[in-house]
Amino acid sequence: MYATPDRTLSGIQPTGTPHLGNYFGAIEQHIALQDQYPGECFYFIADYHALTTVHDGDTLRANVREVARTYLALGLDPQRATLFRQSDVPEVTELTWFLASVTGMGLLERAHAYKDKIARGMKPNVGLFLYPVLMAADILAYRPSLVPVGKDQMQHVEMTQDMATYFNQAFAGGEPVLRRPEGQLSSTPVVPGLDGQKMSKSYGNTISMFDSGKALRKRVGKIVTDSTPLGEPLKTEGCHVLGLLGLFKTNAELDEIKTNYRTATRNGQPFGYGHAKQLLAEAIETRFDAARQRHAHFTAHPDELDAILARGAERARGLARQTLQDCKKACGLR
Amino acid sequence: MYATPDRTLSGIQPTGTPHLGNYFGAIEQHIALQDQYPGECFYFIADYHALTTVHDGDTLRANVREVARTYLALGLDPQRATLFRQSDVPEVTELTWFLASVTGMGLLERAHAYKDKIARGMKPNVGLFLYPVLMAADILAYRPSLVPVGKDQMQHVEMTQDMATYFNQAFAGGEPVLRRPEGQLSSTPVVPGLDGQKMSKSYGNTISMFDSGKALRKRVGKIVTDSTPLGEPLKTEGCHVLGLLGLFKTNAELDEIKTNYRTATRNGQPFGYGHAKQLLAEAIETRFDAARQRHAHFTAHPDELDAILARGAERARGLARQTLQDCKKACGLR
Repeated sequence: MYATPDRTLSGIQPTGTPHLGNYFGAIEQHIALQDQYPGECFYFIADYHALTTVHDGDTLRANVREVARTYLALGLDPQRATLFRQSDVPEVTELTWFLASVTGMGLLERAHAYKDKIARGMKPNVGLFLYPVLMAADILAYRPSLVPVGKDQMQHVEMTQDMATYFNQAFAGGEPVLRRPEGQLSSTPVVPGLDGQKMSKSYGNTISMFDSGKALRKRVGKIVTDSTPLGEPLKTEGCHVLGLLGLFKTNAELDEIKTNYRTATRNGQPFGYGHAKQLLAEAIETRFDAARQRHAHFTAHPDELDAILARGAERARGLARQTLQDCKKACGLR
Repeated sequence: MYATPDRTLSGIQPTGTPHLGNYFGAIEQHIALQDQYPGECFYFIADYHALTTVHDGDTLRANVREVARTYLALGLDPQRATLFRQSDVPEVTELTWFLASVTGMGLLERAHAYKDKIARGMKPNVGLFLYPVLMAADILAYRPSLVPVGKDQMQHVEMTQDMATYFNQAFAGGEPVLRRPEGQLSSTPVVPGLDGQKMSKSYGNTISMFDSGKALRKRVGKIVTDSTPLGEPLKTEGCHVLGLLGLFKTNAELDEIKTNYRTATRNGQPFGYGHAKQLLAEAIETRFDAARQRHAHFTAHPDELDAILARGAERARGLARQTLQDCKKACGLR
């Protein structure tokens, strides 16, 4: 019924300026997929989904552009990967309705993410409740073979598989009009924030990849440590600075730093948390130097960003249109 | 923000061949609107909605065409009214998502129609649950001023008003990006079926407008009466034949027939239920003679039907696109 190359798809939440937690927790692995699936690697920026929580148009527009800039700055290559805005392919909302038509309420009522959101005090909202159906449509529209997800999202992939089956059974006598994707659990490090909790915008404990110089040093300076005075041995266990350094340093380099912690010296000089933080600021600045320049480039050249998103939308929409055409034929809408 | 002519909109369910109950209960009043709102009268055939219950593509395709033929045969004038398929304007599914994003679960949980369907044993299904949101989008996309509805649908218009307000408040600082329509309660006669219950496809007690000759007489012959023998007075109270004749005859004609009932004679000849049924069959045949011929014409010329639906879709989609453009600007998707 359709050509089935191996293809992968990932969604990106447009939630403000991405930070180190996003990078090591998702973006780095996302971008690596373009080497495994050159030409068949899709990333959509989930602006439809954002409407359930972001009710300010200017903020959403800015967030979408920022996250696109960020991915491009961090190495997403538009020659190998397709980056596009979810809302540039409105076909996914049509597919959402088709899937809703064949999905029992029980499936959505059992969704952990919805229950968690309500338990955390979010207002029970039709958009939140329907989220897994739009997410299934976002996936199924492009017929990917594989969807990399974090542990908390695996249930959504299973629900997507179920909905694909419901549709195929209800409207196509079981023929695979919609392709059942496989989920792939991506294990990513938990990145500690300034206060040692998981780095997250909602905790206000983030460090940006794109800060540098004084601003970056000031931010890194806010990482919480114990109050061991300079000259006394530092604890390596539970040190958030060391936790973050681990993301940048080789094992050998890290072992050396741990020795510095224990001896409270480095290169014959006294070594305290301030010095560890300086090592970290330097590591961040070096690692993201080229990315920071590309980020500034796309900020200065919004037309280039627009052109990349437009080309991505065209490619993605072509696939979605084909899927929808097949679905509509099966449903009797064409 | 938008031009606001008086405009009306009605949805049509594509549920098989319409019958006398549909005609007197809805279609006649629907079509009369084209005189009140010439050029601003919209009718959509709700094929997206049908997906929650119809899971056979060929059946849906046939039902949609049949209902379109029926409306055109019965006098819908494409010069004054816009007839189109719901799914020819996929923008309504996109608007459905926008509305879902700002609608609390409570609103849908309180919907009578959903609760009734579940109480009647239908499987709780996301499409059924979401029905009022798609219906709201169906209305709001075209910015009508007035929506004529039966009593059981009035709650859906009120929900539509609420959702328009939620959207305008959440995304547009209360500006009327979406127009709040008014509902107009249409009081329509309840048409008795063959067995005296409300005429309804689900009771199998219908009479078609487009039958004639022997087939029609045979169907009318099945109307349930008491077993008064020919020559004895007939009861006028509770007679379904008389109930149906009332839809076709003037008061004077009806009074004459009631006299025939009481005297068991007409024009000096004996008069029984068989004669009353003959009068009814003749009345149906005469009333729908021209419509039957137009129906046959559109059956023989499917291309004409397609052209009318295509022109309707173009007009309707133009309006919906404008609404969506305004909504997307407000949301921050453009």
